[in-house]
Amino acid sequence: MTDRRAARSEDRTAAIMRAALELARESGYAKLNIEAVAARAGVGKHTVYRRWPSKGLLFLDSLLTVNEPVLDIPDTGDVVADLRRQICAAVDLLGMPPWGPLYRDLVGEAQHDPAVAAGLNERFIRPQTEKTVARLEVAKAQGQLAPDFDLGLGMAILSGPLYFTFLITQEPVTHDYVDRVLDALFAGMRPRH
Amino acid sequence: MTDRRAARSEDRTAAIMRAALELARESGYAKLNIEAVAARAGVGKHTVYRRWPSKGLLFLDSLLTVNEPVLDIPDTGDVVADLRRQICAAVDLLGMPPWGPLYRDLVGEAQHDPAVAAGLNERFIRPQTEKTVARLEVAKAQGQLAPDFDLGLGMAILSGPLYFTFLITQEPVTHDYVDRVLDALFAGMRPRH
Repeated sequence: MTDRRAARSEDRTAAIMRAALELARESGYAKLNIEAVAARAGVGKHTVYRRWPSKGLLFLDSLLTVNEPVLDIPDTGDVVADLRRQICAAVDLLGMPPWGPLYRDLVGEAQHDPAVAAGLNERFIRPQTEKTVARLEVAKAQGQLAPDFDLGLGMAILSGPLYFTFLITQEPVTHDYVDRVLDALFAGMRPRH
Repeated sequence: MTDRRAARSEDRTAAIMRAALELARESGYAKLNIEAVAARAGVGKHTVYRRWPSKGLLFLDSLLTVNEPVLDIPDTGDVVADLRRQICAAVDLLGMPPWGPLYRDLVGEAQHDPAVAAGLNERFIRPQTEKTVARLEVAKAQGQLAPDFDLGLGMAILSGPLYFTFLITQEPVTHDYVDRVLDALFAGMRPRH
């Protein structure tokens, strides 16, 4: 591609993702469809389908691209504070309207559609897991984590209680709740003698 | 109601729930519908609708009624062993075919349909939470649990990592995985000095 054509293609990609987020926010996930996104972005629907085979993947990609920094975990030297900061950023993005209900719909769709489940894992969960484990490894090397803590569980243990609350009991996930979960996970359920 | 009419009504309820489970197992959750359940059970569809306003609630009720014991947590005096036994029973029931995919579909529907979410909580999650907290309270009184463990998080912390794996990464939830999660939760992430 020439530089100009590459730039046009990038503009088009950005316009499609912007249109997807606008339409999702305006009308909800159930009414989101690729034809309407293409029309709003001023491109043909095949241009959208070529890159995103389903609206679930388009919505997820759009949401994450616009909010990429939410994936990053800082390293200030205090692992609890750093996890807290990143989890609260994710909770602010995904746990509240309008994105909360939209993300909930997407996870719902992942229960029926293996392609959406795979996309969710590839695009969001796996990179997030890698960043979480990398941060936990540093903490372990610095003696801030139990030396036998099972790093392979890091993501499930840290995120699981929040997903349970978000998806199952469907109660609000607040910063205070994040604090309580982190306190309980770091302290452990067993008494310290 | 006379005794005979009450018995007939109980038979009918049992027949409806049996038919719902049979049809769900045969054709999957997507194809389950109340008309077919009524026909299989030999009752009118209004008889089904009167008690279960949606197929989600009928399916959940049927699944739990047939498997009621899975909700119980034993008390042998060893809280980790007791939790392990109950969680493994639930994992055996809900984590494997045919019930695993059916339960996943139900949770997926709870993301779009507040009535299904409410029914899931009322019928399954809340009773399970009460039993879990009651068992943890006994353990706390016996000094088997950290005295400051936040009991209000008991269900989310114990179930969350397993739901995360079941619903999000969609990897198999094995007994070995349950052991690893319980070990990590009881030990805590912070080093013990």
